[in-house]
Amino acid sequence: MNQNSKHHSSNSLALHALEARWLVPGLPLGAVLEQHSVIVEEKRILDILPTQQARQRYPLAQTVVLDNHVLIPGLINLHTHAAMSLMRGLADDLPLMQWLQQHIWPAEKRFVSERFVRQGTLLGCAEMLAGGTTYFNDMYFFPNAVAEAAVQAGMRANIGLVVMEFATAYAHDAEDYLQKGLQARDEWRDSALLSASLAPHAPYTVGNSTFENIVTYAEQLGLNIHTHLHETRTEIEDSIKQYGVRPLQRLESLGVLGPNFVAAHGVHLSKAEMALLSAHGCHIAHCPASNLKLASGIAPVDALLKAGTNVAIGTDGAASNNRQDMFAEMRLAALLSKGSSGDAASVPAAEALAMATINAAKALGKESELGSLEPGKYADMTAVSLAAAELQPCFNVISHLVYSAGREHVSHVWVAGELKYQKLQGQAGVYANIEPAELKEISTEWQTKLSQYLA
Amino acid sequence: MNQNSKHHSSNSLALHALEARWLVPGLPLGAVLEQHSVIVEEKRILDILPTQQARQRYPLAQTVVLDNHVLIPGLINLHTHAAMSLMRGLADDLPLMQWLQQHIWPAEKRFVSERFVRQGTLLGCAEMLAGGTTYFNDMYFFPNAVAEAAVQAGMRANIGLVVMEFATAYAHDAEDYLQKGLQARDEWRDSALLSASLAPHAPYTVGNSTFENIVTYAEQLGLNIHTHLHETRTEIEDSIKQYGVRPLQRLESLGVLGPNFVAAHGVHLSKAEMALLSAHGCHIAHCPASNLKLASGIAPVDALLKAGTNVAIGTDGAASNNRQDMFAEMRLAALLSKGSSGDAASVPAAEALAMATINAAKALGKESELGSLEPGKYADMTAVSLAAAELQPCFNVISHLVYSAGREHVSHVWVAGELKYQKLQGQAGVYANIEPAELKEISTEWQTKLSQYLA
Repeated sequence: MNQNSKHHSSNSLALHALEARWLVPGLPLGAVLEQHSVIVEEKRILDILPTQQARQRYPLAQTVVLDNHVLIPGLINLHTHAAMSLMRGLADDLPLMQWLQQHIWPAEKRFVSERFVRQGTLLGCAEMLAGGTTYFNDMYFFPNAVAEAAVQAGMRANIGLVVMEFATAYAHDAEDYLQKGLQARDEWRDSALLSASLAPHAPYTVGNSTFENIVTYAEQLGLNIHTHLHETRTEIEDSIKQYGVRPLQRLESLGVLGPNFVAAHGVHLSKAEMALLSAHGCHIAHCPASNLKLASGIAPVDALLKAGTNVAIGTDGAASNNRQDMFAEMRLAALLSKGSSGDAASVPAAEALAMATINAAKALGKESELGSLEPGKYADMTAVSLAAAELQPCFNVISHLVYSAGREHVSHVWVAGELKYQKLQGQAGVYANIEPAELKEISTEWQTKLSQYLA
Repeated sequence: MNQNSKHHSSNSLALHALEARWLVPGLPLGAVLEQHSVIVEEKRILDILPTQQARQRYPLAQTVVLDNHVLIPGLINLHTHAAMSLMRGLADDLPLMQWLQQHIWPAEKRFVSERFVRQGTLLGCAEMLAGGTTYFNDMYFFPNAVAEAAVQAGMRANIGLVVMEFATAYAHDAEDYLQKGLQARDEWRDSALLSASLAPHAPYTVGNSTFENIVTYAEQLGLNIHTHLHETRTEIEDSIKQYGVRPLQRLESLGVLGPNFVAAHGVHLSKAEMALLSAHGCHIAHCPASNLKLASGIAPVDALLKAGTNVAIGTDGAASNNRQDMFAEMRLAALLSKGSSGDAASVPAAEALAMATINAAKALGKESELGSLEPGKYADMTAVSLAAAELQPCFNVISHLVYSAGREHVSHVWVAGELKYQKLQGQAGVYANIEPAELKEISTEWQTKLSQYLA
């Protein structure tokens, strides 16, 4: 694929060659290459070529043999609140507003601190990384603590600078949220793995003038905007009462919509609204498990795709899912779109994989750097072992990735060319920068504290 | 729980004590016992009591320490075609009739043999067993071959004696199917783990006189009846054209409905039909993943439960799911009922677990012997390790079983008191009676044959 790469062979000690039984580059959609190697030079992919040729062209590269594995782009989680891993299963089987107002918000009020967020995000990163996710689009309080955890884990993160009108342990009003967020961003601006978005929580928690401020900052700083949108019918009805219009229309009139806009959920959308999202080049972070669990509904993914809207996938936080598992989410997105649209060809496996990779990279404006395996892009990659009995036989590797395999089959995860997680067959997984004892301490501490509160 | 058990202590060398951190007996619904032991004597549960007391009362019992595990009833898969594991992912993203008529039936016509069924069922059993399933309700050709595989794996099986009007490699007409099925049943009648049901494939493949015959046999032999029902709208429309009534009404008039009747799918049901099913004491095998994947629709589980119908869960075959994974199916059933009914309290976690255990035992007429952990019942049990980082913290064990854990967390599976599968932390799983090499040979052989056919 890279004809100019020959001059690298002299320096090939610095190269890594991942020799994959199968390679699913993500682009072109549905492509499966057999016995191909990915040549990595430092943080990026230098070349992709048949393994036989790779061995001749890069004879001194350090090889990683993936002989029963499929190598795919690192998965991108387009909507989560990673720190909420500490509230996994805290309150189940409840509708969104009751869940939020009677359980999650009171628990957050009592417990959320910089330490809670750093530790919870680390736990979330550990779960995501082991499940093949290399990049997450987060929204939570104390973004500096999210950044610390992501850096420790070695994950790529687009960190939401959350903004709400009401006071929390983190900030006392919208301006305070904004300034604290921007200050946090200044501290990590030099970190290669981190970026920021402005994250007005939702139309029902953020007023008009704050949205206008956010639009101005987004333009000046070149940031994307990440919000919850049309998650429930109640939210839409309340908006009509308060503002006379549905939330999306309100955001349009405030100038929020554009190609830098990522809306989480989008469960309830009219045809006209889908056309509007498409016309503005907006992106939907589809969170099927969370939407089902909170009985918010089923997002019209088939119609959104037909309207030309870019749809990617998010897990949402562990309090409403209850896992940070992009494999489960890909499978559910593919199944649910078929069952709800009545079209068994809706969201075929390759499209579901795109929704967890290249579509998410597009939503974050990073499709030239991430989201597929191509020379020049960052070497963010996940290897999935297809050796297990429950994955036999295998007629179609992409079908297996989406319908049959799970996060437990992930064997290697690289971020920017560095191995951040590895699980060899029949062994426990190992992180580059996270100790199991640290995770255990974190979960024990917070389980004790939160359990006392629940009791 | 068992006050009469003291006399057993003299013979306690023959006892096993499973010391569980958590015990979820299944009945009463939602119960969680901490630090309890299950005392197993041969095939059955002798006693359940706090571990401290168990150590005093049964001091010589051989102990299995499950110190970070939850012990649950073995999962029961109420609808599958285990042999179809060999066709996992053979054809995806297609609607039911096209999938059946253009892909599955032609492949079956070409390949299905006694050997195919024995080997495919063994692969399916390996997947089910490792995923915590101890008992499956099967329907496929060559029931004698299904029996052989189940016996080797050491799983409990209710084997469908399939009946259709058209010829296959297995039988040439309905009478031939019936006689072959009944003959196969005679061969395994003494096997403690096996039982049989009459399995007319579906209303659209079985005529009236055959259904009448089947009802007669079912009454005479005390067998249950297992069929596909109201899976797609097309099936219902075709029935109205051919018979003037919907399939369920036709089956009622033929005398098929009763407490021994298990209908797989039940996706499209009117209120009156739900009341009818309930009035007859019929059972629904809900197969949410398969119904979504083939775009058949979403079964009205919330309404069925409210109508008093017994609903349990099946995976369906691996060609339309593509996994034999009751954990994935429990989670999907719980999520989907909430999202489709609009009620976040629909199918709470404990109910989803019941649908995968006691409800299925009821559907098979075995609720006095199986489906929950109670003294006197068979010791069919699954241990799930909750030690993994992705399962931390844990506020509610049953929530974790349904929403957070997966089949990969299953550590031990017992059938009738015998350990049939074990996976120690950081090690590969081991079956009592299945060698990995045998599974590998099977999948390699059939992958090669089927791939050549597909090419």
